[in-house]
Amino acid sequence: MTLVVQKYGGSSVSDAEAIRRVAKRIVDTKRLGHNVVVVVSAMGDTTDDLLDLAGSITDHAPDREMDMLLSAGERISMALLAMAVNELGVPAMSYTGQQAGVRTDNHFGKASIVSMVPERIARSIQDGNVAIVAGFQGVDDQEDVTTLGRGGSDTTAVALAASLHADVCEIYTDVDGLFTADPRIAPNAKRIRTIDYESTLEMAANGAKILHLRAVEFARRYHVPLHVRSSFSEKEGTWISDKPANPALKGIVPQSALNYYPQEDTVEGPIISGIAHDRSQDKITLVGVPDKPGSAAHIFEIIAAAGANIDMIVQNVSTIQKGATDLTVTMPHDDAKATVAALEAAKGEIGFAAVVHTGNVGKLSLVGAGMRTNPGVSAKLFGALSEAGINIDMISTSEIRLSVLVSLDQLDDAVRAVHTAFGLDASETEAVVYGGTGR
Amino acid sequence: MTLVVQKYGGSSVSDAEAIRRVAKRIVDTKRLGHNVVVVVSAMGDTTDDLLDLAGSITDHAPDREMDMLLSAGERISMALLAMAVNELGVPAMSYTGQQAGVRTDNHFGKASIVSMVPERIARSIQDGNVAIVAGFQGVDDQEDVTTLGRGGSDTTAVALAASLHADVCEIYTDVDGLFTADPRIAPNAKRIRTIDYESTLEMAANGAKILHLRAVEFARRYHVPLHVRSSFSEKEGTWISDKPANPALKGIVPQSALNYYPQEDTVEGPIISGIAHDRSQDKITLVGVPDKPGSAAHIFEIIAAAGANIDMIVQNVSTIQKGATDLTVTMPHDDAKATVAALEAAKGEIGFAAVVHTGNVGKLSLVGAGMRTNPGVSAKLFGALSEAGINIDMISTSEIRLSVLVSLDQLDDAVRAVHTAFGLDASETEAVVYGGTGR
Repeated sequence: MTLVVQKYGGSSVSDAEAIRRVAKRIVDTKRLGHNVVVVVSAMGDTTDDLLDLAGSITDHAPDREMDMLLSAGERISMALLAMAVNELGVPAMSYTGQQAGVRTDNHFGKASIVSMVPERIARSIQDGNVAIVAGFQGVDDQEDVTTLGRGGSDTTAVALAASLHADVCEIYTDVDGLFTADPRIAPNAKRIRTIDYESTLEMAANGAKILHLRAVEFARRYHVPLHVRSSFSEKEGTWISDKPANPALKGIVPQSALNYYPQEDTVEGPIISGIAHDRSQDKITLVGVPDKPGSAAHIFEIIAAAGANIDMIVQNVSTIQKGATDLTVTMPHDDAKATVAALEAAKGEIGFAAVVHTGNVGKLSLVGAGMRTNPGVSAKLFGALSEAGINIDMISTSEIRLSVLVSLDQLDDAVRAVHTAFGLDASETEAVVYGGTGR
Repeated sequence: MTLVVQKYGGSSVSDAEAIRRVAKRIVDTKRLGHNVVVVVSAMGDTTDDLLDLAGSITDHAPDREMDMLLSAGERISMALLAMAVNELGVPAMSYTGQQAGVRTDNHFGKASIVSMVPERIARSIQDGNVAIVAGFQGVDDQEDVTTLGRGGSDTTAVALAASLHADVCEIYTDVDGLFTADPRIAPNAKRIRTIDYESTLEMAANGAKILHLRAVEFARRYHVPLHVRSSFSEKEGTWISDKPANPALKGIVPQSALNYYPQEDTVEGPIISGIAHDRSQDKITLVGVPDKPGSAAHIFEIIAAAGANIDMIVQNVSTIQKGATDLTVTMPHDDAKATVAALEAAKGEIGFAAVVHTGNVGKLSLVGAGMRTNPGVSAKLFGALSEAGINIDMISTSEIRLSVLVSLDQLDDAVRAVHTAFGLDASETEAVVYGGTGR
């Protein structure tokens, strides 16, 4: 028998009506003959409301207590959802992270899953129940409640799907799947029907907000097929996997997922998955860094000590000083201030001329296979930006991604220009965007 | 070192400001040198809000899911309270019923505690923390979340106090303690300074709403001294125990509790604790019950099968039929309808003439020691009611209680008349109301 894990985010269970709609979908899936395990987030604004309550008490809430507080949110949504499914005549039981066997380390607020032992869930579905599990939470080895941090519910769902050997993990959200670009920016953006894990990772890491990096990494490691789709429509979503879907899933996954074989080596030219963008980065440039051994190592030690996650790195000949270089890095806005302060403090020691901090940057990433081996891709990208009058600030590449930094106020134009240049805004009957579907 | 268990009800933690006020009180107690364990209910209207949410989903919520839902309420209040105590510089950690070792049977919605193993709580206070425990909840042997039903948080507190050998269990509420009558009815009602468990049980069983019967029964069985007081004032409350308070509690319990020895046998006359009243009962009379062996047994089997909790029972010679009797019982209003239907159905079989169901009754109970051995008490009671023009419908007595049923619209007048007749509304410097204080 097939097992379908479904994950519903907060916007899918925002009120009683939404919960009833989700219950209907769960029951429909169950009645198609699939076993169903559901992972649910807290209702709509619950988490924000709880954070506000905590904020009205203290600015220094202990992390352990904050996790205890926030974990109440999923209890409410999961119990209500179980009631709603029961109301439709299908037995359902809700389970906390602890009951579902989600064991984590003790990093409250951003815990990592260390083991999954979902014995009760396996028994529950064998007994014919829909098992409804709290997302985002687990317990540490002291039985203390922990939360998994951002993307935690997606991660719970993927981890459960992996340990239960589910045929698919459906991630329900408020859009129809992954798109070739953000439809709010590029109105002609199309749904990606099938995509591999690596390209999805690059999309997620570079600003596409639908899926969390962490959940995709988990899915990739354990080969969990993901289906990202909308809880507000019956439309097909995006199939993310390295293999075709179990034929028994016909009717609940995209048709193209059933005969999907992503095999990059058989592909002649580059196949573009889509365009991700990111507004959350700051740029920090060290001007006139002495061009001597050890300078760069010293600088990156300081940045690491400041706790910053570096994204892009570029080094050039200095604009102001002979025999020196300019070194530019990008990092999340929230990390930048402390990093700049740490670098300023080390200025004399390292001997650079100045630190220049620019907040106003946007990053555009073109994601797809065959990127590096095909020089035409970068030429086309730079040409499109140039024609649109957009200056490129920095460039960074990976095997399947090409990112450029542009001025923040030109980012939307850049996304549209590149989307058009790569033929992504074709009509509804466009060619397949990524990898061997349709064969 | 002394250990104080404090229980705060929902009205004491209704919002952030109230939570900060409670935190201040906890910290003050801790700084007086006592170890402190706190049991907390859900904030103000949380439980009602959660019930409304469930009601918007279904009218038939499974009990297990309802308990999962409701248990979220204490998670929120306890985590916030722990944050507030930490904010005042005293380390505090919150614990779920499960973490506190509250093991129950699996009667969801009205579970009974089967064992208390509060190891983590004991360790936590040894480590110098204030331990804050969720009231009202536990887990069954499947690790499923259960709730204890009405009075559950009081029961959690008393059970924790018993298993941790606490010196006192303080029950914080929105009034200053137990009163000789409900002050909203008898404006001259005074706070009872000290009282024994049995009299408290009778008060609670007969309509005094401050303490739940169940918690008092637990306290009596395990000899847990209770101090019922207001979280809104610093006033002394009511000391409920069979022994004087630990002298180390001086300053946080009533002065009179320090030299309190309730010894009924040394008391010459009756000592009235107070007057309880109850508006929640209905009266059901079976008219013309055949006066033959087995009739009564049969009737009470039917009532038991209907699930009703009988309070008073009176049997008299029938008013309408020779050789027959009239049998009257009282029971909670909620139980009455089903009981009447069950009795009507058995009418022919048992052979009584009619069922008369009266909703409009009030019960007044006079509680205190030496009641039965002192005929003057009942004479004074009946005299006071007669003078006030109040007709007595039914009478029931126990060792330390004398209850009368009157018309509901005369109940308040009855309470005032009896309160005055027994000298309970004396001035502030009145004689001690109950048992050996002041010696």
